[in-house]
Amino acid sequence: MSNNKMSNERAWHLSEAPFNPGKLHHSETIHAIGNGYMGVRATFEEGYPDELPSTLVHGIFDHGVGELVPELVVLPNPLSMTITVDGEPFSLTTGKILGYRMTLDMEKALLTRGILWQNSKGSIVQITFERFASLTHEHLLVSRVSVRALNGSRAIEMRASIDGSVTNSGVQHWKDLTALNLKSPNMIGLHGVTQQSGCGVAVVSSITSSTGVVPQLDSSDPIRPATVFTAQLANDEQIELVRFTAIHSTRDSADPVVAAEAALNAAYTAQPLYHALLDEHIAEWANYWHNSDVLIDGDELAQKALRFTTYHVLIAAPRHDEHVSIGAKTLSGPGYKGHVFWDTELFILPVLTLTHPRLARNLLMYRYHTLQGARNKAKEAGYEGAMYPWEATDTGEETTPRWTNPLSDGSRIRIWTGDHEQHISTDISYAILQYWRWTNDVEFFVHYGIEIVLDTAVFWGSRAEYNAEKNRYEVSLQIGPDEYHENINNSVFTNSMARWHLSAALDAFAWLSEHYAARAAELVESLHLTTERLKKWHDIIEHMYIPQDTTRGILEQFDGFFQLEPINLAYWQPRVTNIDAILGHERIQEVRAIKQADVVMLSALLPEAVGDEAALRRNWDYYYPVVDHGSSLSPAMHAWVAARLNLMTEAYDMFMHGATIDLEDNKGNVRDGIHGAAAGGLWQAAIFGFAGLHLAANGIDLDPHLPADWRSVQFRVFYQGQQRTVKLTAEAAPETEADKTL
Amino acid sequence: MSNNKMSNERAWHLSEAPFNPGKLHHSETIHAIGNGYMGVRATFEEGYPDELPSTLVHGIFDHGVGELVPELVVLPNPLSMTITVDGEPFSLTTGKILGYRMTLDMEKALLTRGILWQNSKGSIVQITFERFASLTHEHLLVSRVSVRALNGSRAIEMRASIDGSVTNSGVQHWKDLTALNLKSPNMIGLHGVTQQSGCGVAVVSSITSSTGVVPQLDSSDPIRPATVFTAQLANDEQIELVRFTAIHSTRDSADPVVAAEAALNAAYTAQPLYHALLDEHIAEWANYWHNSDVLIDGDELAQKALRFTTYHVLIAAPRHDEHVSIGAKTLSGPGYKGHVFWDTELFILPVLTLTHPRLARNLLMYRYHTLQGARNKAKEAGYEGAMYPWEATDTGEETTPRWTNPLSDGSRIRIWTGDHEQHISTDISYAILQYWRWTNDVEFFVHYGIEIVLDTAVFWGSRAEYNAEKNRYEVSLQIGPDEYHENINNSVFTNSMARWHLSAALDAFAWLSEHYAARAAELVESLHLTTERLKKWHDIIEHMYIPQDTTRGILEQFDGFFQLEPINLAYWQPRVTNIDAILGHERIQEVRAIKQADVVMLSALLPEAVGDEAALRRNWDYYYPVVDHGSSLSPAMHAWVAARLNLMTEAYDMFMHGATIDLEDNKGNVRDGIHGAAAGGLWQAAIFGFAGLHLAANGIDLDPHLPADWRSVQFRVFYQGQQRTVKLTAEAAPETEADKTL
Repeated sequence: MSNNKMSNERAWHLSEAPFNPGKLHHSETIHAIGNGYMGVRATFEEGYPDELPSTLVHGIFDHGVGELVPELVVLPNPLSMTITVDGEPFSLTTGKILGYRMTLDMEKALLTRGILWQNSKGSIVQITFERFASLTHEHLLVSRVSVRALNGSRAIEMRASIDGSVTNSGVQHWKDLTALNLKSPNMIGLHGVTQQSGCGVAVVSSITSSTGVVPQLDSSDPIRPATVFTAQLANDEQIELVRFTAIHSTRDSADPVVAAEAALNAAYTAQPLYHALLDEHIAEWANYWHNSDVLIDGDELAQKALRFTTYHVLIAAPRHDEHVSIGAKTLSGPGYKGHVFWDTELFILPVLTLTHPRLARNLLMYRYHTLQGARNKAKEAGYEGAMYPWEATDTGEETTPRWTNPLSDGSRIRIWTGDHEQHISTDISYAILQYWRWTNDVEFFVHYGIEIVLDTAVFWGSRAEYNAEKNRYEVSLQIGPDEYHENINNSVFTNSMARWHLSAALDAFAWLSEHYAARAAELVESLHLTTERLKKWHDIIEHMYIPQDTTRGILEQFDGFFQLEPINLAYWQPRVTNIDAILGHERIQEVRAIKQADVVMLSALLPEAVGDEAALRRNWDYYYPVVDHGSSLSPAMHAWVAARLNLMTEAYDMFMHGATIDLEDNKGNVRDGIHGAAAGGLWQAAIFGFAGLHLAANGIDLDPHLPADWRSVQFRVFYQGQQRTVKLTAEAAPETEADKTL
Repeated sequence: MSNNKMSNERAWHLSEAPFNPGKLHHSETIHAIGNGYMGVRATFEEGYPDELPSTLVHGIFDHGVGELVPELVVLPNPLSMTITVDGEPFSLTTGKILGYRMTLDMEKALLTRGILWQNSKGSIVQITFERFASLTHEHLLVSRVSVRALNGSRAIEMRASIDGSVTNSGVQHWKDLTALNLKSPNMIGLHGVTQQSGCGVAVVSSITSSTGVVPQLDSSDPIRPATVFTAQLANDEQIELVRFTAIHSTRDSADPVVAAEAALNAAYTAQPLYHALLDEHIAEWANYWHNSDVLIDGDELAQKALRFTTYHVLIAAPRHDEHVSIGAKTLSGPGYKGHVFWDTELFILPVLTLTHPRLARNLLMYRYHTLQGARNKAKEAGYEGAMYPWEATDTGEETTPRWTNPLSDGSRIRIWTGDHEQHISTDISYAILQYWRWTNDVEFFVHYGIEIVLDTAVFWGSRAEYNAEKNRYEVSLQIGPDEYHENINNSVFTNSMARWHLSAALDAFAWLSEHYAARAAELVESLHLTTERLKKWHDIIEHMYIPQDTTRGILEQFDGFFQLEPINLAYWQPRVTNIDAILGHERIQEVRAIKQADVVMLSALLPEAVGDEAALRRNWDYYYPVVDHGSSLSPAMHAWVAARLNLMTEAYDMFMHGATIDLEDNKGNVRDGIHGAAAGGLWQAAIFGFAGLHLAANGIDLDPHLPADWRSVQFRVFYQGQQRTVKLTAEAAPETEADKTL
C-alpha cells in the first residue's frame, strides 16, 4: 500500500501519489529522464489531455516558419502505447483510478508508474510502466509495460506506436515524415527531416512480449506506425512488453535509419535482455553519483533537493558531443526554446568542472566551436574580437528574440538582452579560467580556451568607452544580472567583470608566451594582439569606472541606482508574482527593487572586486533587502555569499528557497522545464558556500559554514586530475583525502 | 519571499503556499485550531465557494428533523469578515492573488494567513489574518486582521460579522437565532437555541481598531449582526482590527449571553491586550508540549508528523468538562457527526494517560457519566450489566445509524456495528485499567472506574454463550476490528479481550474488597455481584473458545476465516481505494482480506493472549499480507507490533503510513476531519512500539527498537504521579530520569 522508506532512501525518490491532474505539467518536468543525448518528459504512454509530451535531443534545432527564432525540435513520441482492456482503451480520464503512483528513482535514473485501473464495465487491471534513457547506450530509450488481469479473465490489446503527430505546441518542424518498413512485426520506425535545418532523424522501436505473442503491424496512419499485441489473460495473469527505442540523427550518424537499426541489434546481441541493460545503466549511474553526490547528514529535505537538482544537471550534460550545450531549461521542457545562456557557464558548469571535468570540457568546447558566431556578432555590432550571443543554439549566432509575445492589449515589448546583456562573453571566459585552474587541462586551454579568453578580451578592448573629461573608461547601454533595469550605464557587475577579464587575459597571454611561444605567436597573428592593443587593456584595467558611494562604502549597481524610488519589499509579502510583473515593465525601471543577485553575484565570483569582508557585508546589507528573486538564479548565489559572511539564517533560507524552485513549483512555471541554473547554483551554494571550498595559493582550501542542522557534509571533487573526498562535520576539523587520479 | 527554517523549526510549522483551491477542504481540516472547548476549521474570514466552515463545541449535539442520528452542531461563524478595497470586496476568487501563505505554528497553536491581493481595478493590499483559540481562556477565540495599502491611498472597509446562516451541510439545528443588543458599536452578538436538544448558545465579539475608528453597527441581517470599520489608508499605511470572541452555552453557563459578555470584559481587564493573551496562550502551550512533545533526532518528516498528530489530540482534549469526549474526527470536521467510538479509549486516550493524566481522567469520566446509556443498551438487547454504544454522543445512548446513505442505485446498506461490534465495552475497561496502572489514581478507580469495569464484566457474563456439547463459551454474531466481515462468530479479538476483561474484573474486585471493603459491598449490592455470578466469570475465563489452527500455531480471526477465498493483495497495487469499496460489500465478506489490525491489534494490547514471541511472529506473518489498511486505525498498530518483533522495515513503513494519513490525505477523506485515532495511534507506535515503553512488574521499562535513521528519541511520561524523561539514543543504553511529581 504505502511506499515509505527510511529517510536516506526517501531522499533518492521522487514520488507522486495519487495522480494530481492539476500538477500534470509540473510532474512531467520534474520526473523527466535523460542521458545527455536525449531528454524525455514524464508524459504518459497512453496520452492525456493538454499534456506536453516531448523527447528532445541536443542540437536538433529548427527555425519554424513565422517564428522569431529557432528552437529545439520535439521528436516523434517514442513511448506511445494504447492499452485496451476488454475493448476499452485505458486512460486516466475514464473508468476509475483505484490507485496511482509514479516514482523517479534518482539513484538509478529510472521512472516507474503503477496504476490500478477499473474500466467503465468493471474490469480491473494492474498496469506498470518503467522507463530509462540508457546511460551506457546513449541512443537507447528502454521501457517496459506490464498488464495484469485482476478480477477475471481479460482481453488485452497493447498497441505500441511512434507518434509523429506531436509538434512544438503547434509549430510543425518536420517534413517528409515516413514510416519505415523494417521487415519484422516487432519493429516500427519513423524517419523525418527538419524543415529549415534539414536534420534527418530516425526513431526505431523493437518491441517483444513476455508471452511470445507475434504482434500485428498497423500501418493505417502514415505518421504513427504501430504494432499490436493481443492476449486473453486469465485472472491474476500478466503480459509484459519490453521496448527498445533507438534515436539517431544526421548530427551523429551518416544514415540515422541504419544506425538506429544497428543500435537495436547491438543492444540485443551485446546485452540481450532488459535487465542486463538496466544493470549496466545503474552501474554507470553509480559512477556518476560516486563523483557527484553530496551527502548531507541531518537535513533530509536539503539532501533530497540537492540530489534532485544534481540529477537534472547530470541527465542534461552531453557525454560525447562537444558541439552542443545545456539550455536554460535543460532537455526537460520547451522553455526558452532550448537556447543556451550564461546559465550554463556560471551556474551549471562548475558542478561538472569539479565532479565530471570531461563533461565540463564538452560544454566549453561548444563555445569554442561557436566562436565564429561570437565574432560575427561583435563585427555586426561594430566591435572587434568575439562577443558571445545572449542566447545561442547550435550555430552560435545570436538567437535572442527581439520581441515578447503579444501582451493582452496586442502590444509587444522589445527584448534588449540580445543587444545589451554583454557580460556573457566574460562569464564564458571566467568559466574557462576556472576550469583551467581546477583541472590544469593545459591541452584544452592552450588549444581552445585561451583563444576564447583573448578574443573576448579583444571585444572588451574595443567596447570600453574612454571618457576623456573624467579620464576613465565607461560601458554604456548595458543590462546586468538585474534585468529589471535595462540599458543602464556602467553596471558594477559588468564593468568589474570586464576589468578582471582583461587582467586575466593578460596574465594568461603572458603564461602562454612563456610556455607555449608558438601558440602565442599564432594567436598574436590571428587575433591581432598588438602591443598597442595590450597596452590599451592595461589602461582600461587601470581606469575602469566602477560606480560607488565612497562615503557609505557601497557599490552603486549602476549609474543612478541610488536615485531610484525606494520601495519597501517587506510590505509586498507573501509575494509570489514577481514585483516587475506586479508593477509593470515601465514602472519597475523607476523603482529600487532588483531582479536577482547582481552586486551579490559579483561578491560570489570576484569578492576581491567588492572588497574586504566588511565591504562585502556592507554591500550585502544594502542589496539583500531590495532583491526580488525574480530570477531562479538568485537565491543560490545569495546563499553562497551569505554563508561566506557567516549569515547562516539568511544563507539557509536562500538555500532552501533555491532548493524548492522546481520541486515545489513556487512560481508555477516548471511546466516549461527545469531551472537548470538554479539546479547548478544549488550545488555551488552547498560546496562553495556552506563547505567554503575554494582555490587557494597552493591548491584548494575550505572555509566551512554549515547550517545548524547539518551534522556533516561529504562530497568528492577533482582537483588537477586527482579526486579528493571532503568530509566536514559540525564538530571536527575538515578532512580531505585524495582518492584517485583522473 | 520564502519562509524556510532550519529543520527543527520547520517541524513545528505546517504551511500552504501558494493557495491550492483543489485542496481546500483538506487544508481547512489540517490547519484547524482548538483548545479542548472549541474547534475551528481553517476556513477563511472572507468566505470561499464550497467551503466547510465550522466551529464546533464539545457536547452541543442536536438531532435534526429527518436525520437518523444526532450530530455536533455547527455554531454561527464567529470569524466572518468582509474586507472591501476601493469598493471591491476581497475574495480569493476575484482580482489577482499575487501571493499567499497560510501557516499553522503548532508550537504556538497559532494560525496565520497572509495574502497579497490586487483587486480588479489594480489596487493592491497586503492582508494578514491571525487566530488562536485561547488555551488559558477556553471560551475565547482571538483573532487579528490587518490591511496595508500598497500602491496608493486606498479606501478600506472591514465588516466584521457573526454569521448565523451556516448550517450542518443544510441541516438547520438552530431556532430563535437573535442578534444581541450590546450597546456598543464595537460589540456584536448572536444567541440561538438548538432545535431538539434545546441548548442555548451565545457568540459575542468585541472588535477594536488600531486607528481608533468608531465602527458602525449594521443590523440589516437579523442572523448576521455586523459592525463596519472604514478607513482611508495612505500608501504603505495599515489598519489592524483585534477581535475577541466569547462562546458560551447552557451546557456551561446559566446565561450564555451574560457569560460571554463577562468573558470579554474579563479578557479586557485581566489581560488588556491581544499580545498579553497570546503570550499567556503560548506559555500554556509550552506546558502542553513540555509534557507531550516527542523529540526525534534524525528524521524530520517523522518529527513533524508526530507533532502534527499530537497537536490534533491536544486541541481536541476537553480540559474542564468530564461530560464530553473526543469524537472520531475530533472537532475538526463533520465526519461521523462528532460521535465517540473506541477510537477514543484505545487510540487517543493513551497519549493523555501518559502525558496529561488529568485530561485522560476527564475522558474516562465521560464514560462514567454515560453508564446509564450503556445499561439501557444492554437491557434493551436482553443482556445484563452495561454494554457501551458503538457510537455515542452526550447522552450515552447508542447513536450508530442503522443505515448508510442511499447508494447510487437508491439502495441502502444495513450498518451492523451498533448491534454487533460489542468489544467496545471491553476497550473502555481496558483503557480504565491501563489508566489506573499508569496513574495509580485510586480515587478515580474506586469511585468510578471500577464500576465500569465490573458492570461491563457483568455484561460479558450474560453475553457469553455456553456450548454444552463442546463445553466451551462462544460469542456469536460479532464484528471485530476487521469490519469487512460482519456478524461473524467467535472473533479471536473479541473473545480474547472479553476473557481478559472478566479476569481483570475479578482481580480488581478482589483488590477492592481487600482495600475498600465498603465500596466493594456497595458495588456487590448495586451490580448484583453474587458469588454465583463471579463463579460463572471464572468458568467463562477457563472455557472461552478461541479459534485457532494448532498445527500451524496461528489464531483464526473468526470461525471460518481460513476457509475464505484467498486474494493476492500484492497484485492490487498501488491501491488507494479500499479493497472493500473495489470488490463491493457482498463480495468482500467472502474474501480473505481484512480491514485493519485485528489479531495484530490483540498482539499490541494483550500479547500474552497471542503467545510467545514466536507465536506473535507466526500470527504477524499470516495476517500482515492480508490486511488492507482500510481503516486509518490500522497502520500505527502494525508499526507497534512490528517494532516489538524487531521487523524494522515493516515497522517504519507502517509508522510513516500512519504519519501521512492526514498530512497527505492519501484517501481523500480528510475534508471530514482529522483521523483522531490514527493521530493517537502514531504516538503509541512511537512510544510503545519504537521506544518499547511498557508496564513491568516493578514499574515501567523500555524495550527500544529505533528506526535506522533515528539517532535519538526523547519524551516525558507520567508514571504514578511522577514525570519521567526518557532519552533513547541509537548507541547508548536507555536513560530515564524523574522530573517532578504530579
